[in-house]
Amino acid sequence: MKAIVVNQPGGADQLQVCEREKPEPKPGELLIKVKAAAINRTDIINREAKSGYLDLPILGIEVAGIVEVANTDTKIPAGTRVMGLVNGGGYAEYAVMPADRAMVIPDSLSYKQAAAIPEVFLTAYQTLFWLGELKENETALIHAGGSGVGTAAIQLAKQLAGARVITTAGSQEKLDFCRSLGADVEINYKEQDFDEKVLEATNGQGAAVILDFIGASYYRKNLASLQVDGRWVLIGLLGGAQLENINLMDLMMKRVQLKATLLTPRTDQYKAALTADFAGRALPLFEQNKLKPVIDTVFAMGDIQQAHQRMESNQNIGKIILNMDE
Amino acid sequence: MKAIVVNQPGGADQLQVCEREKPEPKPGELLIKVKAAAINRTDIINREAKSGYLDLPILGIEVAGIVEVANTDTKIPAGTRVMGLVNGGGYAEYAVMPADRAMVIPDSLSYKQAAAIPEVFLTAYQTLFWLGELKENETALIHAGGSGVGTAAIQLAKQLAGARVITTAGSQEKLDFCRSLGADVEINYKEQDFDEKVLEATNGQGAAVILDFIGASYYRKNLASLQVDGRWVLIGLLGGAQLENINLMDLMMKRVQLKATLLTPRTDQYKAALTADFAGRALPLFEQNKLKPVIDTVFAMGDIQQAHQRMESNQNIGKIILNMDE
Repeated sequence: MKAIVVNQPGGADQLQVCEREKPEPKPGELLIKVKAAAINRTDIINREAKSGYLDLPILGIEVAGIVEVANTDTKIPAGTRVMGLVNGGGYAEYAVMPADRAMVIPDSLSYKQAAAIPEVFLTAYQTLFWLGELKENETALIHAGGSGVGTAAIQLAKQLAGARVITTAGSQEKLDFCRSLGADVEINYKEQDFDEKVLEATNGQGAAVILDFIGASYYRKNLASLQVDGRWVLIGLLGGAQLENINLMDLMMKRVQLKATLLTPRTDQYKAALTADFAGRALPLFEQNKLKPVIDTVFAMGDIQQAHQRMESNQNIGKIILNMDE
Repeated sequence: MKAIVVNQPGGADQLQVCEREKPEPKPGELLIKVKAAAINRTDIINREAKSGYLDLPILGIEVAGIVEVANTDTKIPAGTRVMGLVNGGGYAEYAVMPADRAMVIPDSLSYKQAAAIPEVFLTAYQTLFWLGELKENETALIHAGGSGVGTAAIQLAKQLAGARVITTAGSQEKLDFCRSLGADVEINYKEQDFDEKVLEATNGQGAAVILDFIGASYYRKNLASLQVDGRWVLIGLLGGAQLENINLMDLMMKRVQLKATLLTPRTDQYKAALTADFAGRALPLFEQNKLKPVIDTVFAMGDIQQAHQRMESNQNIGKIILNMDE
């Protein structure tokens, strides 16, 4: 089968298509004929790192496709259209997936649309609800509103919690798109101090939940934007990791809950439980067209280098998809 | 009535007994003839601060006594022996208490024992279970094991969760006492690096929950002592608030949940819910003598200055009680 591997740790130019053995499903796993995969920042980290999260030389942590072999007694027979997280190996014509992580693709969605769902919607669901404990009518501050997780989080916060959504992005095009997804307040972080706008929009109270992909460079503004008893979920460090001059009393006075998280390195058991909870609550909303996968661009396997470059330049709105079907 | 007030913000020498009007219970409140109150660090902060948590000039946030007037339709009639948190005003012969915060004192306990329960057991309960989400067979690292909250937390972690308890203190006398309360591993932080001992005692895994009263000076060792997905509950800053050279990636890799909290400034509603949850689970264990209030010393109202000095010198094991009945 064709698969995309990393030649040497480094830039996008190190990605190449080559021939690999088809993987063998172990008990409890499905072998999937991959129709579409999606690009994630985790893939870039693994591409660059000498030791990544995953041992597999083939990148890719989510796929949509059709079950070819169901090496399991679960109710997902060969021929089923499924999507879900894989433990690496997604950028390939075939991949194996633990059966308890496979979600049946709603009939209304194509494989490309389905491949745009698992990682970002599961991450947004986990961070908003499992960690952020977002409740009805609370306010969520969702940074990087145009990103894959951002576009998923805006929709989930509105549709599942009826929350008020404030979002930040760096262009009017992205902000307009966030509004079309349901965001209530959009802030261009290049033009405005987002903490001032958040406090203005919340009568000085601040947001109950912050999804923070940024880290160090937003630390002070996020702290200022958080309400008392707020949950601050740290899921990325695009703005650096190093902090100086931190006063823990500030955290005490606001009774801050700072929860750092990563989805990819979590256990199979955790991913299965998260998938089941998400599928039960959110999949019906995809069928009703209340939740929408957001596709930025679609690349062929041979154009994987351009696909990674697009994500690295932060141009995308929503997901960058790899089409395996051409 | 006699009450203890702060002359001017400052040291223990600013505390004095004087005459004040008996408080009037509002609807939903009880007027309590106070038999015993207890000293808390919050009182010291309020004594020193120009603007404290509370507006009342009379210090004291917990009492045990007998209901004199029940200005409420609840089931706590005049004559009932009760204990609980008050919104200031505890160091006095009479105090008012929201009725939904009053716990009926188990018959087996004296008023002095009862006064040793509310603040420390509710704080320990809140931090271990509501915030720390301590589960059966997990390991809890409880600092300041000889303190009021420490002695309560050791007992609650053992009796309610069957947890493994590791505790730190600064003297052999305190450590021996922690063991008598049920602690499994005791560490003298003056003689040993507690993080090394915690890792040794947990096969390198670390603790699932840390109760941190210390803050800055323990930051690195607490981070090293925490397991992946651990909950780090920050409830005091005895070791300072100021941090430098913090790397958020360390928090991400361990998926740390850092939860800063204070009990006293929380809402009446929160305190009522916490009281109800605690009373349901823990009060029967006091009757069965499985949980024990820990009294360090008992002072008369006139000796309030010595009572505060004792807490400030960190000599106490358990609670310092103010006896109003002499």
